Amino acid sequence: MQPRIGVLGGGQLARMMIPPAVNLGITLEVLAEAPGMSAELAAHDVGDYHDLDTVLAFAQTVDVVTFDHEHVPQAILRELVARGIPVHPGPDALLYAQDKLLMRARLSELGLPVPDWASVETSEELGAFLASHGGRAVVKTARGGYDGKGVRVVTAAHEADDWFIALAEDGNGGALLVEELVEFQRELAQLVARRPSGELAVWPVVETVQRGGVCAEVLAPARDSAGNVATMAADIATAIAEGLGVTGVMAVELFQTTDERLLVNELAMRPHNSGHWTIDGSTTSQFEQHLRAVLDLPLGATGTRDDWSVMVNILGGPQTGSIADRYPAALAAHPTVKVHAYGKEPRPGRKVGHVTATGNDLDEVAYQARAAEAFFQG
Amino acid sequence: MQPRIGVLGGGQLARMMIPPAVNLGITLEVLAEAPGMSAELAAHDVGDYHDLDTVLAFAQTVDVVTFDHEHVPQAILRELVARGIPVHPGPDALLYAQDKLLMRARLSELGLPVPDWASVETSEELGAFLASHGGRAVVKTARGGYDGKGVRVVTAAHEADDWFIALAEDGNGGALLVEELVEFQRELAQLVARRPSGELAVWPVVETVQRGGVCAEVLAPARDSAGNVATMAADIATAIAEGLGVTGVMAVELFQTTDERLLVNELAMRPHNSGHWTIDGSTTSQFEQHLRAVLDLPLGATGTRDDWSVMVNILGGPQTGSIADRYPAALAAHPTVKVHAYGKEPRPGRKVGHVTATGNDLDEVAYQARAAEAFFQG
Repeated sequence: MQPRIGVLGGGQLARMMIPPAVNLGITLEVLAEAPGMSAELAAHDVGDYHDLDTVLAFAQTVDVVTFDHEHVPQAILRELVARGIPVHPGPDALLYAQDKLLMRARLSELGLPVPDWASVETSEELGAFLASHGGRAVVKTARGGYDGKGVRVVTAAHEADDWFIALAEDGNGGALLVEELVEFQRELAQLVARRPSGELAVWPVVETVQRGGVCAEVLAPARDSAGNVATMAADIATAIAEGLGVTGVMAVELFQTTDERLLVNELAMRPHNSGHWTIDGSTTSQFEQHLRAVLDLPLGATGTRDDWSVMVNILGGPQTGSIADRYPAALAAHPTVKVHAYGKEPRPGRKVGHVTATGNDLDEVAYQARAAEAFFQG
Repeated sequence: MQPRIGVLGGGQLARMMIPPAVNLGITLEVLAEAPGMSAELAAHDVGDYHDLDTVLAFAQTVDVVTFDHEHVPQAILRELVARGIPVHPGPDALLYAQDKLLMRARLSELGLPVPDWASVETSEELGAFLASHGGRAVVKTARGGYDGKGVRVVTAAHEADDWFIALAEDGNGGALLVEELVEFQRELAQLVARRPSGELAVWPVVETVQRGGVCAEVLAPARDSAGNVATMAADIATAIAEGLGVTGVMAVELFQTTDERLLVNELAMRPHNSGHWTIDGSTTSQFEQHLRAVLDLPLGATGTRDDWSVMVNILGGPQTGSIADRYPAALAAHPTVKVHAYGKEPRPGRKVGHVTATGNDLDEVAYQARAAEAFFQG
């Protein structure tokens, strides 16, 4: 029998698990939120991942449950585990990707380098943090943020009042996470995979370029990262994967500070935008590795196919027509670039695809990727 | 709208079109012969490709029709074309992959190098050919052969009597193809893609190793092929693709004779076993290229990712259990090798998957591929 993996959520991450599943002869079953989603090809079920009966019925058709996103409620995950259904990453680990306050507390406990932070329940507490951190800080909602949402730079305590009010109205109490505004020279991301029996694999650390809080571009490996930076990043990701008991692929977003430290910014406990380059640039893609990891199969090699890979997101996409309408011009101009389209309608700011170029001359590779992506705009 | 490609036939070639279709945001619809076939994931229809109404209904849901195999009857293909449905490769080209006598005649007409051959309708004619060719020859049925079926080495005219009788009973008359037994040092294959508007792309010529008439292994590029051999092979494939008006991917199987000539053996007018290495070894896989070609999109670059790729077929597969049962041992021992499983039950002689290794040391690459494949036997 073919192994059967169930994915909760039908977005592009689930979609990009389809090719390696086809290659390896793994049956991928997606529980999509709605018809017509990115992973529709593998979505024989549509249903609400907040509904226990729906998720249970789905889970009973597969060997292991994994995720397109981190939003499945803990109660549902714990019920699956209680019934003996393998879930990777498991609820104990996933908790730290779902709740940034718990994540910060746990990473501090593990002695990992993080920005100065505090849990604040009132405007006064936020004010105190601001006063002790130069009058500027980053405030984050503990839950529900992504792609820059739920993150705000503040210079006065009242600027988070709406979030405090929302938390109070929520009835569960709760707090906001406040962090020092880190002076960083650049942002990095370290991808790691860990299987239940403990084997770990790390890819080279990469450099991520954000625009408006959204990942725009990834250079792999990060420039000038050989040696110390690469080792520090891999050590941090390894310590987190082991410390939190992560199974599957995890991305650790890092700040490289102006004084050459690495600080953990965010965790994503699933394949991640910073790892899309691996599809075309590494011996084992993050999506193949995730499938192997959640099935507790041996992990694949994580070396690079060429010296450099540059991945550029297609954000928004064409203002008229579809991505495919641009193929005649784009593919003719860039025959070595690999284009990935997510089957989503273009919409401002939406991640609708990405392009990856690889090669041994970074300037040329970056040019190829950026110039190819430009065909899908305007 | 996403482009829609319809594939007649649900075997592993259709299956291997799924990953690039997902990547490029192309909708692939497969008309499979039966449920549970290799390309089932994309097979929303099951039906008989010999039935005009079935094929017409299917074809009307897609932008272009292409193939997993060459067995769709000409009458059906011509009816699709008559109704304005794009078919690639078209019936005029496909004819030469369906009928080896027509192929030999046409290649001879184009002045391309082929073995000495004749069309023989009787045992006496076969005897005359044998007498003028050292008493040995290869007899082939004009239609329906593959993987060594419909091919027979004979040393006496009566050894093809059963085929002559079958042809006579068939009622359409017809003849057998007889060819000289070529003294070759090795077999090569040249893969080419051509789009309707004329653009052509060739991959490096490869060396194929056959066992029992079935492809066992492919070395890419062919050893010692730089220069003359590569140029001759590419020129022959280009001349055939243009001369026959081929659209999509075509493989030309070649003999390299002991006196250093290249002779055309067979044509396959679709992605081909000799091109599976391109999935992991070339910038553009034959399956992605086929999708691009049949949509008349610009073709992708056909260079190699590493100096060498070695593809080994998984023939038959495990005698007990499934391919996936062998993953724990196989993937642990060969973390750089890419394994492809076709979702077919193991059965003696059946092509149930393949493995590809790539790298810059041929001995090491060949060892990796062969040793990894061995885990899926016995």
